Amino acid sequence: MSIYTQYYRNKENIGRLLVKCPDKPGIVAALSKFLFEHGADIMESSQYSSDDPSRMFYIRFEFYCEGLLSKRKQMEEDFQELAKNFKMDFTFTYNETKKRSAIFVSKEIHCLLELLWEWQSGDLETDIPLVISNHKEAQEIVESLGIPFYYIPANKDIRKEVEAKQVELMYKYKIDVIILARYMQILTPKFVEKFPNKIINIHHSFLPAFIGAHPYERAYERGVKLIGATSHYVTNDLDEGPIIDQDIERVDHRDNVPTLKKIGQQVERRVLARAVKWHLQDRIIVKDNKTIVFH
Amino acid sequence: MSIYTQYYRNKENIGRLLVKCPDKPGIVAALSKFLFEHGADIMESSQYSSDDPSRMFYIRFEFYCEGLLSKRKQMEEDFQELAKNFKMDFTFTYNETKKRSAIFVSKEIHCLLELLWEWQSGDLETDIPLVISNHKEAQEIVESLGIPFYYIPANKDIRKEVEAKQVELMYKYKIDVIILARYMQILTPKFVEKFPNKIINIHHSFLPAFIGAHPYERAYERGVKLIGATSHYVTNDLDEGPIIDQDIERVDHRDNVPTLKKIGQQVERRVLARAVKWHLQDRIIVKDNKTIVFH
Amino acid sequence: MSIYTQYYRNKENIGRLLVKCPDKPGIVAALSKFLFEHGADIMESSQYSSDDPSRMFYIRFEFYCEGLLSKRKQMEEDFQELAKNFKMDFTFTYNETKKRSAIFVSKEIHCLLELLWEWQSGDLETDIPLVISNHKEAQEIVESLGIPFYYIPANKDIRKEVEAKQVELMYKYKIDVIILARYMQILTPKFVEKFPNKIINIHHSFLPAFIGAHPYERAYERGVKLIGATSHYVTNDLDEGPIIDQDIERVDHRDNVPTLKKIGQQVERRVLARAVKWHLQDRIIVKDNKTIVFH
Amino acid sequence: MSIYTQYYRNKENIGRLLVKCPDKPGIVAALSKFLFEHGADIMESSQYSSDDPSRMFYIRFEFYCEGLLSKRKQMEEDFQELAKNFKMDFTFTYNETKKRSAIFVSKEIHCLLELLWEWQSGDLETDIPLVISNHKEAQEIVESLGIPFYYIPANKDIRKEVEAKQVELMYKYKIDVIILARYMQILTPKFVEKFPNKIINIHHSFLPAFIGAHPYERAYERGVKLIGATSHYVTNDLDEGPIIDQDIERVDHRDNVPTLKKIGQQVERRVLARAVKWHLQDRIIVKDNKTIVFH
Repeated sequence: MSIYTQYYRNKENIGRLLVKCPDKPGIVAALSKFLFEHGADIMESSQYSSDDPSRMFYIRFEFYCEGLLSKRKQMEEDFQELAKNFKMDFTFTYNETKKRSAIFVSKEIHCLLELLWEWQSGDLETDIPLVISNHKEAQEIVESLGIPFYYIPANKDIRKEVEAKQVELMYKYKIDVIILARYMQILTPKFVEKFPNKIINIHHSFLPAFIGAHPYERAYERGVKLIGATSHYVTNDLDEGPIIDQDIERVDHRDNVPTLKKIGQQVERRVLARAVKWHLQDRIIVKDNKTIVFH
Repeated sequence: MSIYTQYYRNKENIGRLLVKCPDKPGIVAALSKFLFEHGADIMESSQYSSDDPSRMFYIRFEFYCEGLLSKRKQMEEDFQELAKNFKMDFTFTYNETKKRSAIFVSKEIHCLLELLWEWQSGDLETDIPLVISNHKEAQEIVESLGIPFYYIPANKDIRKEVEAKQVELMYKYKIDVIILARYMQILTPKFVEKFPNKIINIHHSFLPAFIGAHPYERAYERGVKLIGATSHYVTNDLDEGPIIDQDIERVDHRDNVPTLKKIGQQVERRVLARAVKWHLQDRIIVKDNKTIVFH
Repeated sequence: MSIYTQYYRNKENIGRLLVKCPDKPGIVAALSKFLFEHGADIMESSQYSSDDPSRMFYIRFEFYCEGLLSKRKQMEEDFQELAKNFKMDFTFTYNETKKRSAIFVSKEIHCLLELLWEWQSGDLETDIPLVISNHKEAQEIVESLGIPFYYIPANKDIRKEVEAKQVELMYKYKIDVIILARYMQILTPKFVEKFPNKIINIHHSFLPAFIGAHPYERAYERGVKLIGATSHYVTNDLDEGPIIDQDIERVDHRDNVPTLKKIGQQVERRVLARAVKWHLQDRIIVKDNKTIVFH
Repeated sequence: MSIYTQYYRNKENIGRLLVKCPDKPGIVAALSKFLFEHGADIMESSQYSSDDPSRMFYIRFEFYCEGLLSKRKQMEEDFQELAKNFKMDFTFTYNETKKRSAIFVSKEIHCLLELLWEWQSGDLETDIPLVISNHKEAQEIVESLGIPFYYIPANKDIRKEVEAKQVELMYKYKIDVIILARYMQILTPKFVEKFPNKIINIHHSFLPAFIGAHPYERAYERGVKLIGATSHYVTNDLDEGPIIDQDIERVDHRDNVPTLKKIGQQVERRVLARAVKWHLQDRIIVKDNKTIVFH
C-alpha cells in the first residue's frame, strides 16, 4: 500500500509545514531529518531561495504521519529548538482542521456561485460559516445551502458601523480567511490590518492595468484585445496588494462594455477560485508585496 | 474549378476594398451590386457598425476578378459615384502590389528575426527594401539576405538629424509601412505625423500596464503572474496608440528579470508578426484610438 | 440612435437568414438587395465558400427590421423566387421565437449546472421545458428552478422503451434542440435520425483521441500533457459527428484519474456552453461531417 | 552575496542529482544530509512518489557546490554506499559538461531554425557537433553557423546502410541526444535501441490523435477545431513513446491543409524547443511509457 493510497484513506494524517528563514546550507537536511525522525513521510516539497539581498529561504512540506492528531502537539514542541537554531518562522497546519471562510459579496454573484459550487462538490476544503452582503441578490441561494446570510447594507457614510459589525462576526465565527467575491465596498485600513494576508480579493482587470473603479469601461475605452482578472491579498493600497493569480480572455472590436463584462465574469470566477484553493492548501507565501505560490 | 483554386493560381486577380461611411440602409446591397457588375466575386467580407453616436459603418471585401490588373483603373473610376452618394472613404488595394516595409531595430533582434523568417518562407507578403538600426547587431543577418542595412547611430541630442536621414530613406524607398521591431528610440511628433497609422510598434508589456521604459523590471517589481506584449500603431502619445494585438505568457515567483525577458521575447515576436501580417492584408481599420481587425 | 441601440431596445425586430447554395457570382448582391428592399438592415454577415469540388456557398445574415413580426411572413414568401433562381437552401429564424431545449443528464451534473446558470443570468436565450435523467442527482436543483424533471431509468435492455418515452416527451414539448450534458447512455440510430443536427453532445476528450468510454482513464494511461473536451452533433457513428468546439487544459505527471476528471469538468462545461450558445444563435452550419461556425 | 548571484557567476559549480528508488521513509533526509555534508547547497528540488503498485520514488536536485569540478569524483564515489542502502538508480550531471546534440531534419526546417536560434542566443545549453539531413534545404544555414552538415539521402530500401552511417557519426561525435526536428524517415528498432530515451521527436498532432502519416490532412478531414503538436521520446512503437510536451492552436472552418500546416509549424517549434531544453537540464524522467517532468 503506497503512501498515496493511505492518503486517500486517512486524510487526517496529512500535515503541512511552512518555513521561512535566512538562507544557509543545511536547512533541507535538518528539516527532512526532523520529519523522518518524527515518523512523517514527505509527500510533496517545494522550496524557493530569494534572488535579492534579503537572502531568505522558503520551503513547504506536505507530509503523511500515522497517528498525526495525537502526535502533533509533541512535534510542534520538538520543532522549537530547530526553529531557533535556524531563525525560522514556521507554521504547522493540519488537513483535519479546515480553515473557516467568510464570503463577502455585493450584487454580482457569479464568483460566489463558483465558490459555493466547488465547495459543494468537495473541491474547496473549507467551512463556510457565513456570507455577508450589502445586497440581497445572494440571499436565496446561500440560505438554500444552509449557510447563514447576513444582510448588512453599506455605504461610505456608515462604513465605521458596518465594519464594526463585520469584525464582530469574523471573531464570533472564528474566521480564518475573508473572500471578497466581488464585494464592491472599500475596506478601511483599520479593518484590513486586523486580517493581514487573510483577505483575498478579485479585481476585474489584469492589474496593474485599470486599477480602481470601472475597469471594463476603461478597457473598452482603451481598445484592449485582452481582458483579465487578478486575485490578490488586500492591503491598504487599493488594488496594490500581493498578486496571487491572473488570467485573461481574448476580446475584439465587436465587444462592448456589457459583453466585456460577461466574458470577464468567466475569468474572474476561475481566477478567484484558484487563489482560494491555493490559500486553503497553504500553498501561498507572501514576501514583500509578492506571492510565492507552490503549485 | 472553384474560386479558391483560382485564388492559388492567379494571385494577381485578388483585390481588396475597404470602405468607411455613415451607417444607413442599403450599403452592402450597393457595394455587392457594384462588385458583381464589375465581375468581382466576393471571397471574404467583414463588416462592423460602430456602437456609438458616430454611427459609422465599416466593411472590408476581398474579391477575385478575372483580369483585374487591366480592369482596376476603370473600376476605381466607376466607384467614385457610389462613394459620393454614400459619403464613403474607401481604398482599393491589390494583391499584386506588395506593400513596402522598412524595419527599424536596435540591439535585440528577436522580433526582426521572426519577421525575416516569415518573409523568407513566403508568409509575409511584403517587400523589405531596407532595415535601419542604431546598432550593428543585426547587420550580418540582414545583409546575408540581400537587404540593405543602414546603420544610423541615434540618441536624444541628434534626434533631428537622425530622423531627417530616416525620412529621406523612407521617401527614397517609397516605404508604405514602418515596423519598429524593438527600436529603442523615441520618434518625434514631426516624424510620426508624416506616417499616420503606418508605423507599427511592439511594446513589451500588456498595455496599458507598464507604459514607458523598463516594463519587465516593473513587472518583476509588481509580482505579476502574466507578462505580455502589445503591438500598436504609433501616435504622438507614447505607448497610447491604437492597439492591434496583445498576448501573454504565464510566469511565476521563480522568474527574475532575465527570465521574464526571455519569456517575453517569445510573446513579442508573435504579437508583432501577427500585427504586421494583418496590416499587410489590409485587415485593420483605425477608428478613433482603437482598431477594428477583420480576421 | 444607432441600430445597435435599437437592437437592445427591440430584440423582437432581429432576424437571421442562413443560406446555402452552389457558389456563383452575384449571390451577396442579390441577397443584400433583397434585405434592403424589405427594410432589413444587415447587422452582421459572415460567408464561406467551400474549398472543395462541391463549390458550395454559405452565408449568415443577422438583420434588424422595424416591425419584423408583422412583415416576416411576406418576406419569407417573397424570398421563394430568389431561392429558386440560385437553388438556395435557406432558413429564416427570429430572435423573438426562442428555441426550446431539452437537457439530458446522468450522474455528473457540472455541465447541466453551467447551462442552468447561464440560462438564469440571461446568457442562454432558450426555453428549457424539461430535463431528463436516468439518475436523481439533478432533480432537486432542476425542480427548484421550476423546470419539470423526468426521471427515466435507462439501461441497455430497456433502451427501446426508454427512447420511446423520450421521443414522446420531445414531441409533446416541441423540442428544437437536445443537449446531452454528460448523458451516459448510447442513443440508437432510430432516435438520432429523428433529430438530425439537433442533438449536441459533450465528449470528455479532444476527439478523435480517446473515442468511446473512459477517456480520462485512457488519457492517464497514455501520459498525455493536455486533456480536452469536444462538443459535437450526434450522428450514428459514436463520437464521430461534426465537431462544434474543442478546448484543452494542461495537466502533468502528478495528476491521476480523479484530478484529471476535476480539471476536465472545467473544460467540458465551457466547451458545451459555447456550442449551445452558437447553436441557439444559428451560427453553426453542418457541411458533410464538419461544422462551419460563424463566430 | 546569495547563492543565485554566485550561480550566475560560477556556472561550473552547478550540478544535478537524479535519483529513483523504492519509496520508503527517510530518503529525502538521507539525500539532503549527503549533499550538505559534501558542501552542496540545494538550489532546487522536486520529487514524485508513484501512485501505483510499483511504489517508486523520484527526486531531482540542482545544487551549488564550491569547487565542484575537483570534488565531483569523490562525491560520486561516496554516494555508492547510500545508493546501495536505498537501492537507488542515480545520475550525477554537471553544468560544466554540456550535452552533445545531433539534429536530424528533412525538408521542413522551421523546427531546426528555432533550435539553432535558441542555441545562438544562449538559451539552449548544448553543443551541436552536426546536423544530418536526407535533403539539402538546411545545408546553407547550418554551415553558415559553422556546424558540420551531413547530407545522407535516405529511403526505405537503403535504410540499413543509412542508419549504419548515422550510428557511426553518433559514436564519432560522442552524441548524447538525437533531436528529430521533422526528420521524415522511420528509424528501425535496431537504431532506436542504441539510444534509449535519448531520441526526441516532434509529431505534428496532439497524440494519440492522428498517429502516423499526414496528420494535418486527417485533422482537416475530421474537422477538428484545435491542432496540436507532441514532443516525445522515440521507442519502437511509432508515435507511441513517452510524451514530453504538447500544445495546441485554435483553427476554424476557413483553414485548409496549407494553413493548418502553417499554424501547426508555430506549435511544433515551441513544443520541440521546450522538450529539448528540459532534456538538456535533466528535468525529465521516463517511467514506464510516461514522463515525469520537473519544471
